Amino acid sequence: NGKVWAKPHAQRSLWVKKITGCKNIHLSTNLLLGDYPADFVRSVSCQVCDHLLADPVQSSCKHLFCRLCILKYIRALGTHCPACRQPCIPSDLVTPAKAFMVILHSLVIRCPAQDCDEHVRLEDYGAHTLSHQEGQSNDNYLPVNKGG
Amino acid sequence: NGKVWAKPHAQRSLWVKKITGCKNIHLSTNLLLGDYPADFVRSVSCQVCDHLLADPVQSSCKHLFCRLCILKYIRALGTHCPACRQPCIPSDLVTPAKAFMVILHSLVIRCPAQDCDEHVRLEDYGAHTLSHQEGQSNDNYLPVNKGG
Ligand SMILES: [Zn+2]
Ligand SMILES: [Zn+2]
Ligand SMILES: [Zn+2]
Ligand SMILES: [Zn+2]
Ligand SMILES: [Zn+2]
Ligand SMILES: [Zn+2]
Ligand SMILES: [Zn+2]
Ligand SMILES: [Zn+2]
Repeated sequence: NGKVWAKPHAQRSLWVKKITGCKNIHLSTNLLLGDYPADFVRSVSCQVCDHLLADPVQSSCKHLFCRLCILKYIRALGTHCPACRQPCIPSDLVTPAKAFMVILHSLVIRCPAQDCDEHVRLEDYGAHTLSHQEGQSNDNYLPVNKGG
Repeated sequence: NGKVWAKPHAQRSLWVKKITGCKNIHLSTNLLLGDYPADFVRSVSCQVCDHLLADPVQSSCKHLFCRLCILKYIRALGTHCPACRQPCIPSDLVTPAKAFMVILHSLVIRCPAQDCDEHVRLEDYGAHTLSHQEGQSNDNYLPVNKGG
């Protein structure tokens, strides 16, 4: 139906967490180093989960989401953009412009791992977390997936 | 008074142009090279005039404006932020974080001068426009202000 669907912000964050389940895998915008302007922080955030964009995709209305977040959102709530409610189907989603990806990847965050606090570029964060796993003691060792 | 003041977007752009008078001195976001996401374009735009930020300043609510735009806005419409309506006085305005300024300055635009169309980094645009003045024919020559 064409009814406009809206919830207050506090409620929204509750049900979105249920849909995306990304609290423990995505990075909070609070980890960004540098006291960025509000609209800039928003521009590097997922319009579904509000975390820093992870594997971002762009809708035809030019809004950005983590790839998994928008797919889960569409499955749960329908084929519209969460930011502007224009039609949005998975096959419309594209990778954002390279010039934007360069900016996103160059952002520096404070590593949220306990006792780390290192400053890491977003593009290096995946490799950085591997270094944590290698440094773990044997009792909570998780084998690294080597692929294949 | 505490009344919330709001106008439809079309009307807003009309009266804002009257207040700022910046149509012929600021750069349109349409000149940006690279098909940037909508929220990113917004994050490098003035929240008063919608042009690309010129000499940006940041309010305590972390919104961004051209320095002249927000000063003219406050004088005409009162000491509140045009984006979120929180209190905003000229002495609260600060330069945005350096990390943001680096991103802003690195953006590339298509020079809007007739018969130019060169691609110019925003930080080089001032120097670039001087090169246009030097190249002008004598009948419309404007002496460059050497200062002093
Ligand atoms: Zn998330
Ligand atoms: Zn997300
Ligand atoms: Zn949208
Ligand atoms: Zn770390
Ligand atoms: Zn302007
Ligand atoms: Zn402005
Ligand atoms: Zn504000
Ligand atoms: Zn030019």
